[in-house]
Amino acid sequence: MEDLRQHLAAVEDLHAASELLGWDQNTMMPPRGGAARAESLATLGRVTHELFVSDETSRLLEAAEQALGDADAGSDDASLLRVTRRHLDKARRVPSRLQAERARAASVGQEAWVAAREHSDFSEFAPYLTRNLELAREYVDCFDGFDCAYDVLLDDFEPGARSRQVTTLFAELRDELVPLIAQLREHEGAVRDSCLHGSFEIGKQRALARGLVALMGYEPDSWRMDDAVHPFAAGIGGGDVRITSRWDPSFLGSGIYAAMHECGHGLYEAGVGDELRRTPLGHGESLGIHESQSRLWENMVGRGRPFCNVLAPRIGELFLGSPDGLDPDELYAAVNRVAPSLIRVEADEATYGLHVVLRFELEQELIEGRLAVADLPEAWNSRVQEYFGLRVPDDASGALQDVHWAAGLIGYFPTYALGNLIAGQLWARAHEDLADLDDHIAAGELAPLREWLRDRVHRHGAKFRTDELLSQVVGGPIAVAPFVDYLKAKLGAVYGTSL
Amino acid sequence: MEDLRQHLAAVEDLHAASELLGWDQNTMMPPRGGAARAESLATLGRVTHELFVSDETSRLLEAAEQALGDADAGSDDASLLRVTRRHLDKARRVPSRLQAERARAASVGQEAWVAAREHSDFSEFAPYLTRNLELAREYVDCFDGFDCAYDVLLDDFEPGARSRQVTTLFAELRDELVPLIAQLREHEGAVRDSCLHGSFEIGKQRALARGLVALMGYEPDSWRMDDAVHPFAAGIGGGDVRITSRWDPSFLGSGIYAAMHECGHGLYEAGVGDELRRTPLGHGESLGIHESQSRLWENMVGRGRPFCNVLAPRIGELFLGSPDGLDPDELYAAVNRVAPSLIRVEADEATYGLHVVLRFELEQELIEGRLAVADLPEAWNSRVQEYFGLRVPDDASGALQDVHWAAGLIGYFPTYALGNLIAGQLWARAHEDLADLDDHIAAGELAPLREWLRDRVHRHGAKFRTDELLSQVVGGPIAVAPFVDYLKAKLGAVYGTSL
Repeated sequence: MEDLRQHLAAVEDLHAASELLGWDQNTMMPPRGGAARAESLATLGRVTHELFVSDETSRLLEAAEQALGDADAGSDDASLLRVTRRHLDKARRVPSRLQAERARAASVGQEAWVAAREHSDFSEFAPYLTRNLELAREYVDCFDGFDCAYDVLLDDFEPGARSRQVTTLFAELRDELVPLIAQLREHEGAVRDSCLHGSFEIGKQRALARGLVALMGYEPDSWRMDDAVHPFAAGIGGGDVRITSRWDPSFLGSGIYAAMHECGHGLYEAGVGDELRRTPLGHGESLGIHESQSRLWENMVGRGRPFCNVLAPRIGELFLGSPDGLDPDELYAAVNRVAPSLIRVEADEATYGLHVVLRFELEQELIEGRLAVADLPEAWNSRVQEYFGLRVPDDASGALQDVHWAAGLIGYFPTYALGNLIAGQLWARAHEDLADLDDHIAAGELAPLREWLRDRVHRHGAKFRTDELLSQVVGGPIAVAPFVDYLKAKLGAVYGTSL
Repeated sequence: MEDLRQHLAAVEDLHAASELLGWDQNTMMPPRGGAARAESLATLGRVTHELFVSDETSRLLEAAEQALGDADAGSDDASLLRVTRRHLDKARRVPSRLQAERARAASVGQEAWVAAREHSDFSEFAPYLTRNLELAREYVDCFDGFDCAYDVLLDDFEPGARSRQVTTLFAELRDELVPLIAQLREHEGAVRDSCLHGSFEIGKQRALARGLVALMGYEPDSWRMDDAVHPFAAGIGGGDVRITSRWDPSFLGSGIYAAMHECGHGLYEAGVGDELRRTPLGHGESLGIHESQSRLWENMVGRGRPFCNVLAPRIGELFLGSPDGLDPDELYAAVNRVAPSLIRVEADEATYGLHVVLRFELEQELIEGRLAVADLPEAWNSRVQEYFGLRVPDDASGALQDVHWAAGLIGYFPTYALGNLIAGQLWARAHEDLADLDDHIAAGELAPLREWLRDRVHRHGAKFRTDELLSQVVGGPIAVAPFVDYLKAKLGAVYGTSL
């Protein structure tokens, strides 16, 4: 077991190096370093993959499996063997060459995406997306036993999830959201967010965000916060968690919430038990669980009424010259205003789900060849018209807005909406377990919630499957109702109507 | 040959990743990330080493050697095979385990050094130095055919150099410097550097330095400049060169020159021919050559009379409210003031060599066991008394001032003084080749010198040995006279006396 642990630790060390190279590429790297970085990431990915799928891993794993036997199924060791076996059986099906090409194409694709997005020209980016899709199909062909191509890709981000199940959950969600949004449209104008628009010096926004994430658990000794075109979080290793945000000098409602969102991811990475570090269990489990953490902190805490008691005076102090300058109720309404919009990461909680459904549909069509890459902007734009009633003015606000496909991440988007659903379940449960939760949050005391999450979710890392973990914490599988109930209660209060 | 090139490119890609991890550790990483970073660097070092010393490298190298035969000895291909053969024959003697342990000890050692230096407590750091020395001795034991242990270590930084040769050069240098410094001591007080002392806002110092390195050839698209405790430069890959500096708010003469120094290193990395990238020829050759570039830009350009015409008005403008606020002659004298001091990186050009001689002696004694680690501070302090007539008040200003031994770099220091000698040779030759060089520099036109260096030195990367390169460019081996002649001429002018 110890030999296996050491061997797997080396694999994790190389993963950490890749993670850092990726972080650097998106925050620090000079623009012309992209080509060399792509090569470095490709080689590092290939070498890591080769080390993991080596006969050595198989040999050590088999020996450890035999030594452990059926004893102690709930132990860390047993989980480690189960998870490693699952990863190894998957990884051994993928040739190193393909792994390296996907990494290289992802790196080059991100560079191309940054430029194409700047020029708002999808055609510049199309060849890179085509390449990523080709490689994704080659990847799919390495597997059997799945119902469809998309399931293979989805399984990498949400282990065990299947598109049939996601389709069902999303249908239920859509059937709740569409009438809800229609009903709110009748109250258009009842909620204004003018207090979020204006002139907000970026330095002050950064300082505000630093204060908020400090309440959440950001520690300067083991965290960093930087700027990035597309905000993300990275767990580099024990004692090294990095988050990013981006700042709009004329809108306050985006940068600080992106920072809280990424800090939610960061807390998950930071909270993994030390005994699981440098093992395959040492990071968050599925992306759905990961996203549940970020969305819970961003929306349920950050946009909740109690936290507005903390946030409003800080905004007032920084930007209006007085802590009383902004009414917490006005802030609460503003940050929860529902308005169909073009950009997913800036969408309100009610319409957010539809952004994900749109991408879930389009990427299924792309991977199955039912939609040509060249036709993507048109398909995107017409579906945005259909779902949101909005015209897409340019590709930067349309099919070029997200980095995921550029980075070869196909099958990733559903995890965002699943994360919202899981967050709804955890949020309801936290309120059952922590009687004074809202009072604590209103006083800026976020430690009780963080520690509850750490105990129930974070410390386990990838020890449990999503369904196992949810069963332990909330007593059942992913469900739509808690999220929708939460949303209706909040928006009903904000819009002063029964939903 | 193509297969070999691809294989070696992968090795270089991994080196680039290590280089980035090291850069990050010294600039960006949160303090508590050190332990995990040490593991990552150790594993990456081991994996890189294993890939390079693999049978695959031998097989591909032998095939390429046979295919090329004796043809075309001056070609890139022939150089590539020669250099790769030399590296491989050395590397195959070192077990991967030892390689990894040295990398880990170096990483952990640097973390310990930062803390010990902060507390100015050598005893905190002693166990880490002991460990680095043990591992260095183990490393030495992997080799035969060298006259002494120190030669093995020296050869890693200055390929082909031997301590006997260095001892001879350093004796000649010391015999020139000691009477020179004694003579200048009689003129103590003739030169003042009060214009460099005062209050200099760090933000403005950074801006000043950015302006200077921009003249040298720093390009924002492919370079970065950051702060670091111990300034360094890193060539991460094509289009990605990173330099660092540190800032003293009460002394202007250190940060900007550190920036020019590191930019000199960076220009060497940036100037390597594209056709040599991702090969073992794709970086600077010996550290002596590397240091010749940094010292040439820092001292011969940066502290030269012509460049003071560029620098003085910028300082005047930024800190004194007027471009005429500082007389270039006053600046010229101030930045060339000779005064024995404690800190190597802040030493003047005349005493600098003695700092290196001191370290050269002590590290020889340490590696040969003639000096115990615990006795190092005392030995250091008494030798500083002897050479400089100065008392060392604390370890931070003494044996803890440099990062090198913490990072396992033993045998590295001599290259600094060799760099000065080589810089003297190149500087003399550049003046022969470029008739209007001083006029260009006085006008802030540094491109002619940079292009001359790129053509003569940079573009060749590691294609030629130090002695081969010097023979091509200056017509002979490393020599002391040009540097000493340069120094006497400059200091004679500054001190108004004949030296």
